[in-house]
Amino acid sequence: MIVTVTPNAALDVTYTVDSLKPGETHRVRSVRQRAGGKGVNVARVLHTLGVDVRAIATIGGRTGHAFSDDLAAAGIPAKLVPIAGETRRTTTVLGDTTTLLNEPGPEVTEAEWATLGRTVHGQAPDVLVCSGSLPPGCPQEGYASLLSGLSILDTSGDALLAGLKAKPTVVKPNLDELREVTGLADAESAATELRKAGAVTVVVSLGKDGMLAVSPSGTWHATPSTVLTGNPTGAGDAAVAAIALGLLRRDSWPCILRDAVALSAAAVRGALAGDVDLPYFRRERDLVSVHPS
Amino acid sequence: MIVTVTPNAALDVTYTVDSLKPGETHRVRSVRQRAGGKGVNVARVLHTLGVDVRAIATIGGRTGHAFSDDLAAAGIPAKLVPIAGETRRTTTVLGDTTTLLNEPGPEVTEAEWATLGRTVHGQAPDVLVCSGSLPPGCPQEGYASLLSGLSILDTSGDALLAGLKAKPTVVKPNLDELREVTGLADAESAATELRKAGAVTVVVSLGKDGMLAVSPSGTWHATPSTVLTGNPTGAGDAAVAAIALGLLRRDSWPCILRDAVALSAAAVRGALAGDVDLPYFRRERDLVSVHPS
Repeated sequence: MIVTVTPNAALDVTYTVDSLKPGETHRVRSVRQRAGGKGVNVARVLHTLGVDVRAIATIGGRTGHAFSDDLAAAGIPAKLVPIAGETRRTTTVLGDTTTLLNEPGPEVTEAEWATLGRTVHGQAPDVLVCSGSLPPGCPQEGYASLLSGLSILDTSGDALLAGLKAKPTVVKPNLDELREVTGLADAESAATELRKAGAVTVVVSLGKDGMLAVSPSGTWHATPSTVLTGNPTGAGDAAVAAIALGLLRRDSWPCILRDAVALSAAAVRGALAGDVDLPYFRRERDLVSVHPS
Repeated sequence: MIVTVTPNAALDVTYTVDSLKPGETHRVRSVRQRAGGKGVNVARVLHTLGVDVRAIATIGGRTGHAFSDDLAAAGIPAKLVPIAGETRRTTTVLGDTTTLLNEPGPEVTEAEWATLGRTVHGQAPDVLVCSGSLPPGCPQEGYASLLSGLSILDTSGDALLAGLKAKPTVVKPNLDELREVTGLADAESAATELRKAGAVTVVVSLGKDGMLAVSPSGTWHATPSTVLTGNPTGAGDAAVAAIALGLLRRDSWPCILRDAVALSAAAVRGALAGDVDLPYFRRERDLVSVHPS
């Protein structure tokens, strides 16, 4: 079973407006909301693919109830750890641009963090995915206390650096996140730095230029067949879902990278984060180019 | 007692960001939320002034509970009419600009509207304030079925036009709203049209240029002493609060207009809609200029 962990879960709200104009009043045309946070998006994509997955997240308050109702309605198996604080909301404003407003999230106490850890280890995951920012209040070692076995860490900044100590199987920064933690402009050199710091394999998402994997068995670059326009929120999470499935199946890196690029593109075609266009994924995975780098 | 009615109430959420940039991801620095909607803001201002007021609003769902909790915490007396739909949210994004994102709101059924009407009439208000947009699903005659006695109607478009049939004591459009319903550019001519259509007195809010009142006893123009920068959300509601109090006290129009302009300016200095800077109001009401027009 794949287990995803989202310690700073969110209720994702999507507003549709004609065009977002700072300083003006907007009539919101449609409001959609669903359980979100990066790990939950990963679980949603894996559930859509028919994979045995469990989402672990912290929830609290009225927004936490809405979060839990939505997961149940979607049929995504979950273990939710109650916290005293109220679950945050993230708002995506879709118009002629995609604009995100992310609330910081509630504090998670040491005792709540310990419960989260016990919940994760209690699931005995085949592949563990730890995603997103760390909530305020959680211990300094952060994700390192959760990671073990086959694992993917998808976070940024200090949470990424602290997590490397647990030697995650894969980390998946995007280019900005990679440059931020290494100070290096070149993706391959920066990825090599992260490997030296503890990551076994580094997968870098390069936006429209696809993905780069730097692994113990080699380096590959995969590019999509077409550059898509759409809602990029959740594209990285779809890539993580493909990587988790690839680790579970013991696939080769060129094969994992191909699926990650195709599933990421299929997520750009989805209306909301966590949605993927499955027929597109099935076509695109045959069309992605993968080259040793 | 002054009674305010807000049929399309909202939980007002205020996000603080560094600067709102369409197409980008924003970390929200602070999240504040409170019961809102124009009539609730009017009630909040009157409650701050120590006036006997009651807020009537429709509420539903989890957001409705948060709304009701906030009114109780603020000590604002209220009669809340439960509806099946979920209370909407309006989001104000404060940065270098003030940007509003208003959800459309839930449908209010005919039976729910009838309960709202009975609740309003059951309060036997001395002054009745009907504020804001009408929710989807409510009867065509809209506010006209609620208005009686001394009354203020603060709405726009079709809801304003339909409400005029009940001959409200005061309507308070802003210049854009007035032009929209009359098709006339000149404020005084347009206000006279609204009086012919049923309004006894028309008060037009002119933003930084103050306010114009066209009444059976004359026409006056009032201007603030200084143009303030701040959060303009709720300035119109503060003006309505001053007008309601003036009607209750049987004040003269020059006196009502003076207080309306000063209280409106005091609201621009308030952090959130419904907040007023009382010391500023007390100073400013002596400094407002009022001229017969």
